[in-house]
Amino acid sequence: MIIIGELINASRKAIKAAIETQDAAAIQQVATDQADAGADYIDVNAGIFVGKEPEYLRWLVETVQQVTDRPCAIDSPDPVAIEAALSVHQGTPMINSISLEKERYDKLMPIVADTDMKVIALCMSDAGMPQTVGDRMRIADELVGGLLKNNVKVENIFVDPLVQPLSVDGTFGVEFINTIEKIVATYPGIHTACGLSNISYGLPARKFMNQTFMTMAIAKGLDGAIINPLDQRMMANIIAAEALAGKDNFCMNYLKAFRAGMFEG
Amino acid sequence: MIIIGELINASRKAIKAAIETQDAAAIQQVATDQADAGADYIDVNAGIFVGKEPEYLRWLVETVQQVTDRPCAIDSPDPVAIEAALSVHQGTPMINSISLEKERYDKLMPIVADTDMKVIALCMSDAGMPQTVGDRMRIADELVGGLLKNNVKVENIFVDPLVQPLSVDGTFGVEFINTIEKIVATYPGIHTACGLSNISYGLPARKFMNQTFMTMAIAKGLDGAIINPLDQRMMANIIAAEALAGKDNFCMNYLKAFRAGMFEG
Repeated sequence: MIIIGELINASRKAIKAAIETQDAAAIQQVATDQADAGADYIDVNAGIFVGKEPEYLRWLVETVQQVTDRPCAIDSPDPVAIEAALSVHQGTPMINSISLEKERYDKLMPIVADTDMKVIALCMSDAGMPQTVGDRMRIADELVGGLLKNNVKVENIFVDPLVQPLSVDGTFGVEFINTIEKIVATYPGIHTACGLSNISYGLPARKFMNQTFMTMAIAKGLDGAIINPLDQRMMANIIAAEALAGKDNFCMNYLKAFRAGMFEG
Repeated sequence: MIIIGELINASRKAIKAAIETQDAAAIQQVATDQADAGADYIDVNAGIFVGKEPEYLRWLVETVQQVTDRPCAIDSPDPVAIEAALSVHQGTPMINSISLEKERYDKLMPIVADTDMKVIALCMSDAGMPQTVGDRMRIADELVGGLLKNNVKVENIFVDPLVQPLSVDGTFGVEFINTIEKIVATYPGIHTACGLSNISYGLPARKFMNQTFMTMAIAKGLDGAIINPLDQRMMANIIAAEALAGKDNFCMNYLKAFRAGMFEG
């Protein structure tokens, strides 16, 4: 499972404040905490700072990379901000994210074309939010097709089928996980990823529902997640589900997590 | 999800003692506890009592049915014991279980043929334990075909693909859940069921692994489970997973479980 640590996002109060005061130590603590907890990528998002996003996003990348060798997931739809971040990024980052929305697609495709960067491909188009497996696959087909044509390798693409709240429609959970399964079957070597906390919007016991949904998505082939890696119960679910999905040789990670006390409580 | 409560099994010390002393109240307590916790069938098993199984199994059915209207799952490979239990059973029971092992198949098929009883069809043959999806499907195809030919309705069949320990082979989890998916796709209207605690044999944190595996199997279409319904965390996992699988109108069961405090701790 490829974990994208989501915590360095300026929509969170403490992160907003740390960016405004240029408190590098605070940002670096969140970066190392996530890396230590198993994050493979550190997401950086300064989207709320209109006009200052390029400057702040570049600073976040520099600040994070001073303390960890994990690459960043550069979380912006703005090509100017992304280019600013890329100008200082060491190693190969992830771009979070391209979609089929025309403006976003046209601006981000030239950035990822002919590169070895990872890219999240969000199943969203100007026609609005997809509902069914069919809706999502039509967007995915066009998006993946476009990326491949622009020489992005299939193994660098992370399709995000877009989670919508179960409270809005009882079929949204199953349509999402069935899309995961279909994408994995349709494009051998591709990855899938998602931020899944939307699933429980409007329902109680959200953490438990999110954990359960993660386990179900892994059963269907999900291999990337944009999550809070400090949520130990979520990480425990991922580790157990991956062992059960045959992705943990000799249950080594599972046994290690058990010895670390991750399955308690 | 059709829940088969597994607790009235003479291999458990307290149940063995209650049967030997004909302590009806003790058995009835376990029966009503399971029914109250959501069991749809009450499994009864007196298999350890060689020679006395027919007498004890009949007594268990009578004793259980005095306090609950849930039908029994008659858990025996012995046609004499099953017939004794059936002679007193009110309503339509489940037979747990037929398999492709020749002796068992030949003895149990005449009992279930041309009836409306539910029957668990265990993917086991004289060739030994199945390993892959293909192994399991070959057994399932023959077993389901035989049952259908003997006028057992497809909706009365619960195929159990047979869980084997992950500690023996890291592929056993994924081969099992992929079989569930294939059976559901191959035989519209059929059910699947399993006792899944074998998956975690030889590993630590067994309860957590069992709960995680249940959630993954539900994602793939599992709709029956032979479990301890008093395991509240397991039941909570099932309820959340079924809501996410689109099998809980307006999340009514999920909300009810939340109000009952089932998602705490």
